[in-house]
Amino acid sequence: MDSNAYAKGMEMLGKMVDPEIVEQTVNKVAKFSPDFAKLIVEFPYGSIYSRPGLDMKQRSLVTLSSLITQGAAGQLDFHVNVALNSGLTPNEIIEAIMNTLPYAGFPKAISALFVVMKVFEDRNITV
Amino acid sequence: MDSNAYAKGMEMLGKMVDPEIVEQTVNKVAKFSPDFAKLIVEFPYGSIYSRPGLDMKQRSLVTLSSLITQGAAGQLDFHVNVALNSGLTPNEIIEAIMNTLPYAGFPKAISALFVVMKVFEDRNITV
Amino acid sequence: MDSNAYAKGMEMLGKMVDPEIVEQTVNKVAKFSPDFAKLIVEFPYGSIYSRPGLDMKQRSLVTLSSLITQGAAGQLDFHVNVALNSGLTPNEIIEAIMNTLPYAGFPKAISALFVVMKVFEDRNITV
Amino acid sequence: MDSNAYAKGMEMLGKMVDPEIVEQTVNKVAKFSPDFAKLIVEFPYGSIYSRPGLDMKQRSLVTLSSLITQGAAGQLDFHVNVALNSGLTPNEIIEAIMNTLPYAGFPKAISALFVVMKVFEDRNITV
Amino acid sequence: MDSNAYAKGMEMLGKMVDPEIVEQTVNKVAKFSPDFAKLIVEFPYGSIYSRPGLDMKQRSLVTLSSLITQGAAGQLDFHVNVALNSGLTPNEIIEAIMNTLPYAGFPKAISALFVVMKVFEDRNITV
Amino acid sequence: MDSNAYAKGMEMLGKMVDPEIVEQTVNKVAKFSPDFAKLIVEFPYGSIYSRPGLDMKQRSLVTLSSLITQGAAGQLDFHVNVALNSGLTPNEIIEAIMNTLPYAGFPKAISALFVVMKVFEDRNITV
Repeated sequence: MDSNAYAKGMEMLGKMVDPEIVEQTVNKVAKFSPDFAKLIVEFPYGSIYSRPGLDMKQRSLVTLSSLITQGAAGQLDFHVNVALNSGLTPNEIIEAIMNTLPYAGFPKAISALFVVMKVFEDRNITV
Repeated sequence: MDSNAYAKGMEMLGKMVDPEIVEQTVNKVAKFSPDFAKLIVEFPYGSIYSRPGLDMKQRSLVTLSSLITQGAAGQLDFHVNVALNSGLTPNEIIEAIMNTLPYAGFPKAISALFVVMKVFEDRNITV
Repeated sequence: MDSNAYAKGMEMLGKMVDPEIVEQTVNKVAKFSPDFAKLIVEFPYGSIYSRPGLDMKQRSLVTLSSLITQGAAGQLDFHVNVALNSGLTPNEIIEAIMNTLPYAGFPKAISALFVVMKVFEDRNITV
Repeated sequence: MDSNAYAKGMEMLGKMVDPEIVEQTVNKVAKFSPDFAKLIVEFPYGSIYSRPGLDMKQRSLVTLSSLITQGAAGQLDFHVNVALNSGLTPNEIIEAIMNTLPYAGFPKAISALFVVMKVFEDRNITV
Repeated sequence: MDSNAYAKGMEMLGKMVDPEIVEQTVNKVAKFSPDFAKLIVEFPYGSIYSRPGLDMKQRSLVTLSSLITQGAAGQLDFHVNVALNSGLTPNEIIEAIMNTLPYAGFPKAISALFVVMKVFEDRNITV
Repeated sequence: MDSNAYAKGMEMLGKMVDPEIVEQTVNKVAKFSPDFAKLIVEFPYGSIYSRPGLDMKQRSLVTLSSLITQGAAGQLDFHVNVALNSGLTPNEIIEAIMNTLPYAGFPKAISALFVVMKVFEDRNITV
């Protein structure tokens, strides 16, 4: 295990989302498989997100687009929260989904929009 | 047909890539199916890319990520050229591919990297 | 915006499904993002479905197959309703899903069949 | 092995494509793995394509859409040949690809169009 | 129909899962479309799973990986049950999901892990 | 960077494939983006493949199935070589592809079989 990537990953997660969201996602996995959770913290957050070269808003655009394109409904809400916390505006997030329409197609983009509607509702965001 | 979206799309394409790339892609389709080519010009470029709300660099990040994630090798080089012309640096493009590693997986990201390597070579770009 | 494609799209939607289904889908999006809803009406329905060259039953076969293959569970019920309203028989719809078995695989086809079972049940259709 | 499904499959293949295409596809597999080739003949062609309920043109629409949506470039040309031999016109095939634009997205549909262009060229078909 | 593949398939299913799981899956389909259910029994179980060459634990690894990679949440629990009944240990199943992380990506692997957590809970399995 | 995961990864790669294959894949990436190559060595090979819990043959079955299912033609040959070097027999590899037929579908499995045929030919393997 790489304690350096792990530490960087935990620090990054702390900046990206509130503690209760970390609880529902990473810690939920950790209680079942500590090794699996370590990999989640180390690789996406410790090894990728902590890199310079792209800022957090840019990283959110890449990640959201990948999740929308693969129809990954289960983790999309987590990353919508990250996107908002990174400084992408609600309208920028909706624009990003619209930008996937020609590439991922309407079914996947519409499914993503419904997830975003729910996250915005939970956070009392009006567009 | 929407002449407004078509005109906006042709204008956008002219800003995004050089004429010879438009020839190899959109015009190649137009010679076979004019209607199909009109839709390519109107929808992605006339209706989506011409929208305000995200700038061209941001749109490139979303589009590249979607293409990488779906393994769309055939159109990736076009959009890598668009990304460079939009002002994303070569290093930012490589960072974007790295950002897809945890989400799209290594096979798709590596395939995309090989396409990028070829485009950079064709444009004499050293990283 | 293309008022011509929009008008054609609204007209097409009116022929394809009942008003309450348009409410749950297109209008639900419109209340959140009017621009996004306009694109849904204009492109799939205004620019594609209104085209001659394939009839509505043929278009349903293509669309259903694409949704099944990408595992797009969220929009499949809408298009099953369209397929029935277009004149595809319940047995033809089940045959179409069976035809995806060798190409999309059993998991996706079975998931699609469960969606179809629910739509048929809601519409009191016995096969 | 099911000799009934195998016989029906061989008969169906004979109706669907010319002998040299069967040689390049099914027989190419048979020389490497006879069992694998038997499954190809028995399941898609013996168990699915030989069924009543949808005609050959309808089955082609479903199969083409599934292949386009999954980006299955390697087998698309075979099924474009089947589609033409089943009586779908060249324009109907192009319309079917256009019908996948909103659902599979532009990259996959454009890749499919290029395959179709090549098959039409090989068969001296002008649209 | 191939009574030989059907018989082998029913026999295989009987070894793989408990009767109540066969009821919720295969029989649920059979009540709606007997032909569809026959294909489910004949092809995956009669024609593939009954083959020698790979044992049941090896087949489970291949099948689980394919389902995880395509995000087939609906049928994953069935095959997790098959995997446990075949002799793969709970830890081996979690290792297999971890092995998909670099290839299918974190969203799909995490979604699969949540399905596995549920199946283990239902079967009172502690890891 | 985690020198521990990197070292384990390099050691694992050395056991998995011959030096010239490492040159064509990992080193090809390293010359373009050293950071990208480090991630390839560290994560799949250093963090996943070096884990106990599944042996190399089992890991190959999981990885091959994931690559086949996502249509990742570009990296499949590398992993077919790994599979052979791990002790999976040629017939076991073909059986594994056959096992993906019901789950990934015939197009993806057939594409994979053609890659395997080429690797076997290059290694003078007769089945």
